[in-house]
Amino acid sequence: MNWKLVTAGLALALGAGLTLPAQAQSPEAMVKQRQATMTLQGKYFGPLAGMAQGKIPFNAQMVARNAAYLDVLDKMAWDGFAESTKGTSAKTRALPVIWSEAGKFKEAQEHLQSAVSQLVEASKSGDEAKMKAAIGGIGKSCGACHDEFREKQ
Amino acid sequence: MNWKLVTAGLALALGAGLTLPAQAQSPEAMVKQRQATMTLQGKYFGPLAGMAQGKIPFNAQMVARNAAYLDVLDKMAWDGFAESTKGTSAKTRALPVIWSEAGKFKEAQEHLQSAVSQLVEASKSGDEAKMKAAIGGIGKSCGACHDEFREKQ
Repeated sequence: MNWKLVTAGLALALGAGLTLPAQAQSPEAMVKQRQATMTLQGKYFGPLAGMAQGKIPFNAQMVARNAAYLDVLDKMAWDGFAESTKGTSAKTRALPVIWSEAGKFKEAQEHLQSAVSQLVEASKSGDEAKMKAAIGGIGKSCGACHDEFREKQ
Repeated sequence: MNWKLVTAGLALALGAGLTLPAQAQSPEAMVKQRQATMTLQGKYFGPLAGMAQGKIPFNAQMVARNAAYLDVLDKMAWDGFAESTKGTSAKTRALPVIWSEAGKFKEAQEHLQSAVSQLVEASKSGDEAKMKAAIGGIGKSCGACHDEFREKQ
C-alpha cells in the first residue's frame, strides 16, 4: 500500500482524543478545513433556501437528503476555530470575538445544530410548510452567526 | 429574516433534481466544492491512517466517529466532477481521463464507498485488527483513484 501517497500532506502527528489537539495541525490547515465545511454547508443549504423562498421548485426528497448531510456537516467546523488560528496568515474573515466571546460562539454553533435537527424532523413529517419554516430557522442561525463572528465583506 | 445575507454567494438557480444540474452552478464553484470534500475527507481519514500505521495511538471511538463522517463525505464530491468543469480556469489537478473513462471513475467512487462501509461495519465489531485492515482498504482506494485520475504534483 502506498501509504506515503495516501497520507501526503496530512498532519499525522495527531493526538488520540476526539478533539484533535490544535498544536498538532498547522493553523493554515485548520482554516482550510473549517472553510471547506462552510463551503459544503453552502452547497447543501443553498438549494433549500431557494425552495423556501419559492425561487426553485420544492423537492421533499432533496430536502431530506440535504438535511441529513447538514446534520453531519454542522459538527465539523468548530474544532477548526482553535485559538492557534487567531492571527494566522491564512485568508479568513473570522473575527477575534470568536475567542473573546467563546461562550456566545458555542451557543451560535448549538443554535445551528438545533435548527438543522428541526429540519431533519420536519423532513420526516412530509409537511412542506413545516420544512420551509425549519429551513428559515437554519437561515436565521447562519445569518446571526455570520453577523456577529464574521467580518463583513 | 435576512435572506439576502443567508443566500449571498450561493447559486440559487438550481434545478430540483437530486443531482444538481451542472449548468446551474459555475464550474469554479463546483471545483471549490469538490475540493472542499477532499479536504474534509483528508481531515477525517488522516488520523485513521496514522493509527493504522502505528504512528498515533489507536482510538476506537475516533475510528467510529470518523468512519461515520466519511460515510457521508464519500457521497459529496462526485456531482462536482461535471463535464462543465473540464478546462475550467480554477486550479485543479483533475485529469481529462475522468471524463474519457467515466465508467472507471464511477467504479473508483464505488470502491471508496464500499471500503468506507467496511470500516463502519468493522468499527461496530470493536475488533482493532479488523478496523486497521479496513482503514488500509480505504487508503488503497484513495491512492488508486488519485494515481489514475489526479495529476501528479
